[in-house]
Amino acid sequence: MIGEGVTRREDDRLLTGKGRYLDDLELTGALHAAFLRSPHAHARILGVDASAARQAPGVVAVFSGADLPEIQKPLAPKVMHPKLKDLPRLPMPPEEVHYVGEPVAVVVAESRYLAEDALELIEVDYEILPAVASTAAALAKDALAHSGAEDNLAVTLVQRSGNTDEALKSAPHTLSGEFFVTRGGGHSMEPRAVAARFEPATGQVTIWDTTQSPHYARQQLSLIYEMAEDDIRVIAPADVGGGFGPKAQFYGEEVVVPWIAIKLGRTVKWVEDRQENFVATMMERSQTHRIDVGFDGDGKLLAVRDRIEHDQGAYCAGLQVPSITTSTVPGPYRIPNIHTELYACYTNMVPTSSVRGAGRPQAVFAMERMMDRVAEYLGLDPAEVRRRNLVQADEFPYRVGIMFRDGSPLTYDSGDFPALLEGTLDRLGYEQARAMQERARAEGRYVGIGIAVYVEGCGLGPYEGAKVRLTNEGKLLVTLAAAPQGQGYETVYAQIAAEALGIDMAYVEVVTGDTSRIPFGQGTFASRITATAGPAVFDAALQMRERLADTAAQLLGCDPADVVFDGDRATLDGDPEKSMSLLDIARVANIGKHGITLPAGIKPGIETVSYFAPERAAYASGAHAAVVEVDPETGAMDVLDYVIGHDCGNVINPRLVDGQVLGGFAHGIGNAMYEEPFYDDEGQPQAASYLDYALVSSTEVPPVELFHLHTPSPLNPLGAKGAGEGGTIPAPAAIANAVEDALRPLRARIDRAPVTPPRVSDAVADAR
Amino acid sequence: MIGEGVTRREDDRLLTGKGRYLDDLELTGALHAAFLRSPHAHARILGVDASAARQAPGVVAVFSGADLPEIQKPLAPKVMHPKLKDLPRLPMPPEEVHYVGEPVAVVVAESRYLAEDALELIEVDYEILPAVASTAAALAKDALAHSGAEDNLAVTLVQRSGNTDEALKSAPHTLSGEFFVTRGGGHSMEPRAVAARFEPATGQVTIWDTTQSPHYARQQLSLIYEMAEDDIRVIAPADVGGGFGPKAQFYGEEVVVPWIAIKLGRTVKWVEDRQENFVATMMERSQTHRIDVGFDGDGKLLAVRDRIEHDQGAYCAGLQVPSITTSTVPGPYRIPNIHTELYACYTNMVPTSSVRGAGRPQAVFAMERMMDRVAEYLGLDPAEVRRRNLVQADEFPYRVGIMFRDGSPLTYDSGDFPALLEGTLDRLGYEQARAMQERARAEGRYVGIGIAVYVEGCGLGPYEGAKVRLTNEGKLLVTLAAAPQGQGYETVYAQIAAEALGIDMAYVEVVTGDTSRIPFGQGTFASRITATAGPAVFDAALQMRERLADTAAQLLGCDPADVVFDGDRATLDGDPEKSMSLLDIARVANIGKHGITLPAGIKPGIETVSYFAPERAAYASGAHAAVVEVDPETGAMDVLDYVIGHDCGNVINPRLVDGQVLGGFAHGIGNAMYEEPFYDDEGQPQAASYLDYALVSSTEVPPVELFHLHTPSPLNPLGAKGAGEGGTIPAPAAIANAVEDALRPLRARIDRAPVTPPRVSDAVADAR
Repeated sequence: MIGEGVTRREDDRLLTGKGRYLDDLELTGALHAAFLRSPHAHARILGVDASAARQAPGVVAVFSGADLPEIQKPLAPKVMHPKLKDLPRLPMPPEEVHYVGEPVAVVVAESRYLAEDALELIEVDYEILPAVASTAAALAKDALAHSGAEDNLAVTLVQRSGNTDEALKSAPHTLSGEFFVTRGGGHSMEPRAVAARFEPATGQVTIWDTTQSPHYARQQLSLIYEMAEDDIRVIAPADVGGGFGPKAQFYGEEVVVPWIAIKLGRTVKWVEDRQENFVATMMERSQTHRIDVGFDGDGKLLAVRDRIEHDQGAYCAGLQVPSITTSTVPGPYRIPNIHTELYACYTNMVPTSSVRGAGRPQAVFAMERMMDRVAEYLGLDPAEVRRRNLVQADEFPYRVGIMFRDGSPLTYDSGDFPALLEGTLDRLGYEQARAMQERARAEGRYVGIGIAVYVEGCGLGPYEGAKVRLTNEGKLLVTLAAAPQGQGYETVYAQIAAEALGIDMAYVEVVTGDTSRIPFGQGTFASRITATAGPAVFDAALQMRERLADTAAQLLGCDPADVVFDGDRATLDGDPEKSMSLLDIARVANIGKHGITLPAGIKPGIETVSYFAPERAAYASGAHAAVVEVDPETGAMDVLDYVIGHDCGNVINPRLVDGQVLGGFAHGIGNAMYEEPFYDDEGQPQAASYLDYALVSSTEVPPVELFHLHTPSPLNPLGAKGAGEGGTIPAPAAIANAVEDALRPLRARIDRAPVTPPRVSDAVADAR
Repeated sequence: MIGEGVTRREDDRLLTGKGRYLDDLELTGALHAAFLRSPHAHARILGVDASAARQAPGVVAVFSGADLPEIQKPLAPKVMHPKLKDLPRLPMPPEEVHYVGEPVAVVVAESRYLAEDALELIEVDYEILPAVASTAAALAKDALAHSGAEDNLAVTLVQRSGNTDEALKSAPHTLSGEFFVTRGGGHSMEPRAVAARFEPATGQVTIWDTTQSPHYARQQLSLIYEMAEDDIRVIAPADVGGGFGPKAQFYGEEVVVPWIAIKLGRTVKWVEDRQENFVATMMERSQTHRIDVGFDGDGKLLAVRDRIEHDQGAYCAGLQVPSITTSTVPGPYRIPNIHTELYACYTNMVPTSSVRGAGRPQAVFAMERMMDRVAEYLGLDPAEVRRRNLVQADEFPYRVGIMFRDGSPLTYDSGDFPALLEGTLDRLGYEQARAMQERARAEGRYVGIGIAVYVEGCGLGPYEGAKVRLTNEGKLLVTLAAAPQGQGYETVYAQIAAEALGIDMAYVEVVTGDTSRIPFGQGTFASRITATAGPAVFDAALQMRERLADTAAQLLGCDPADVVFDGDRATLDGDPEKSMSLLDIARVANIGKHGITLPAGIKPGIETVSYFAPERAAYASGAHAAVVEVDPETGAMDVLDYVIGHDCGNVINPRLVDGQVLGGFAHGIGNAMYEEPFYDDEGQPQAASYLDYALVSSTEVPPVELFHLHTPSPLNPLGAKGAGEGGTIPAPAAIANAVEDALRPLRARIDRAPVTPPRVSDAVADAR
């Protein structure tokens, strides 16, 4: 089954409108919560008067942050660093708000309409404070994002390999660039949502949460509520309208809503609306890179220095993004001297955290823009400059020279970057494209070719786990801790299990994302699940096959090695009479007969479990190549051709990997050319609806050709890496490279993503 | 910890009134169910008119059996036999009722009061049919307990060893007796109760049930409801007011109540009241034994033939009781020729199933009465006759000659019956008691000494399981499938786990009886849990100790063999600086750091599991000795002295074993001298309250001395057997033997249990 393009099990229900998203769950008698959010980027709360709201029709309760002091405990950053100056992010801060959209109060009412009506009756007395709305402003300390903080720096991180100062000084050539990548959001079709029901009879609260990390949510809630984890059941419903990173974080609403359900003894539900999603769900991307590159006359890289300003937003929900950025700068290239300096700044905008790509698109943008500049400077072909610097296929495991964020040497496990690049260029018809570019230029048209190559850490630790159980109905039930966000876990993990079991996939069921079903788990993020839960499923299923063969052999009176599986049956090889179904086995060993001894040799309790902890991260890689025609007057761009070369190691289901890459590419095109959630200087979001925010739709996504390479990861038995982000990561760089290449005759410079028509025409105007 | 008389953890809350029994659970918005029950022992239902009841105040719904055809499926007998003629026991029969108390309709209302009021408005048109109210009537076929059945026989079972006919014919002496043991109930302080809540959002129904077998209940419900077992969560609350066997069965109410909860989408609760408990909760005991014994002049047994009539009641909920009776007849004696013939009959009384002792008291009554008759016949001391026949300590494993009900040869694993008997007699002061008896007789007083020795199969299969998990709060959580019925599982299994772990018991928590926490289990019955779940806990805890030592060793940088445990800490032996708590270990291995690789060598997911399947049943044994003074005129009896010798193998907690034995003894005294739930000839129960049923209370229980012998079972690593029933089993035999011995000068015969004053004076009158 592994490697087959099995149709997604999920699609039947999803495509026929039968998906049950969180808001579709029948939660009998549920109350509805609506949050009052700060209209100010930075303000002191002098008072909250909710008396009128409490009298409003249908209102059951109103709580400001001060009304729930017992849960106003700082939400821990998901990824820490000893040097981080962590300013407390409270679930619903009672004293000071730090971004537009931060929860200030919550109304619980019989309907969402009544709750929202009552929100308008709450009077909050704010003292408006000066806001910080960019990393530049943050570093200039014109204002403080948090009153009383020393400065706006969350952390300064330096990564060093070799002696970059010396190397840059002595390099035959150096070039510098400054690049900016703007914020971008996850924009999942289903926004965040959380509902909770407390059961006094068990003392357990059941929480339905669109989270990517149910076990993480449970752990945080356990600490805040001071309840045992076993008394908190977090279910991430299997049908979820996307995650993309923001749902891997943990938010104040996830603390407030279940707590109110416990307090009131009533079911309470909150579903984020689209406007809330714009202002209150975490974003990513906003970084400025000032990069210096030293190289020799052949274009060989000698040194890279990158000074990165990272917009952490109002709070640090985790340092993963800037930390990933610093380790992504070197990419697929041999660079003897590397120096990165990161300044993560607090600003008065919604906090940032991982969005598909997670810090990598920015690093790739800076580095790949510079590779093109080096080529231009030396008069070399951009592909050729890349070729001369790529780590070669025989150099793995390859030590990059800097450190991964767990303190270990950053080491690529496997790959074949030259083959990836050449394969991608071949499929593009690189030579023909260059010839076409020449012809176009001769016709006065501006056509450019952009290439971007990247390496992506994925399959991260610490671990994932899986169970396989022979159910008493004679099915094999695979239980994963991880919660899918649309990737098709029900299909993929049934394939992996069926492969190991030798049982027909029809008899394999998959359940996910329910903390009551498996005690330990981490979550769906960082393109990690196939490479972590996958091996756990595979191993648990291999153990299960052995358990089934042993049991069947005892009952059939044969050697376990002679038991073959087909459909749902275990049969003595060559003797179809000696055969039993999974249900037969379950009836004997699981159910047994009341008070009667099991048949000799039968071991009860047919459930297997496996946890897989990867030794270190695996590294997927890819190359994108774009051909773009630009109208220099209007800035209009037309992507004529696009090829994605993608290597995520061994593939479980090529159809699903293609889906991931194409979805990621749509996301990448949005980042490259359209999406920008800009804020004004007071930290007021200027794009809080799709009228203002150009979310990419299918008409904007150009046709694309996919090319796959498979260099198995040696770090897990499936040889798998991650496939969720490669479509996104290099797209802004490839598009920007292509546009600048198109405009090369005009010497226009493209230094920002997204590359929008106004920016292009401005760049052309600047260059004239 | 094993072997220590640790105080019960449960007692603090139970003794201070903080126990939460099923009716105490806060089930917000619960509706209350009340059952209309048949007032007839046997009748055809011609029609049910519930229209008035449906209009009654507070009534939400009324269902007769015919209104719920989808769940009218036969409840499977818990223990089957291929020869059993199983007449269908429906949850709420729509057509014919077969005992007084059988559910006919159910009202669901806002309160139990309103539900009971509405019951009176339901009109049922019955056609009364002739009833069968004794095994004699059943065998005579005067009437049929079920219309259309061929006869009233459920099953005829014959057990044979040697050639009993020949042996009886050739025996130097033979004696015959006929003995009757009446019905008796479990009379748990908390009656049966079931409540259910359906959660549409998960499709799961949660059922709180006082059952002794939550996994069995789930399995039955899965079959009847046609729902996956995983969608049914059965919780047997940890606080339960006793079980004693009747709650190990599965009843119609357990099907009806959750089904209504699912249908209505409302929480529904039913708590059996005491009157219902008398008429609708299963009973046991009622058997007639016609026994022939052949022996030589030394009193050595040559052959035993026992013809047993067993009252199965209206349905066969399982054949365990009569099957246990037949295998208990031989007891601790070498008997070369055995023949038992069992006739299990359907009658129109509440079905019978196991009650503490489960078929053994009846067999012991018949056999031990005959041992006294043999002694009397030969003019030997009753103790001496027993001595001459006991299996000796060097004869184990001892094959009895007949079969156990799983088809394997009935084999005693270990024991020392002579030591048990002598120890018991020593503690009684047997010689002094005989001397005292002589003196009393000389004074015209009637004092007798009764002895009864028994062997008890316990620790039955098929298996039990346990998990041990290092929780994220740094505790060790032991999860058992089995549901306690008051035996102190929270204490005993914490002791067993702590012993294996070397961790302070204070850090060990125990949860039980929740099908959502462990997938497979059997239940609490047949004194089996210590000998089945005990080894599973022990093994899972040993595995856990290894996991903890391995993990701590990796983190402390030492050899796992050098890690010692103390309190909740793992420490490098001899280096108190190198130490970490369970919480430290959990933080590293279970929780981990988001996206960071685990430290080298750390294996995540610290949970261990073990299922233990005993090779065959273990055999506990015991001897009771009683001194009773009888007033032959009034029949009044005074138990002057009572000694219990008890061998349940190795003991985990002697305090708890003493509690079990003493509780069982109270039960046994009730069976021996007081309790009788008699029915009239129409099958009408004549004792349906404690005004009519003489439940034993503390004032009736005589002082008793306990003597323990410990012959470890070789069948499990703890060497444990079962302790729950030994106090009960031989008590009726010992008391009857003592009373007959007291009355020997009058030659009065005691052939029935209970031995009540009217029976004694009648026996004296008969003998005169």
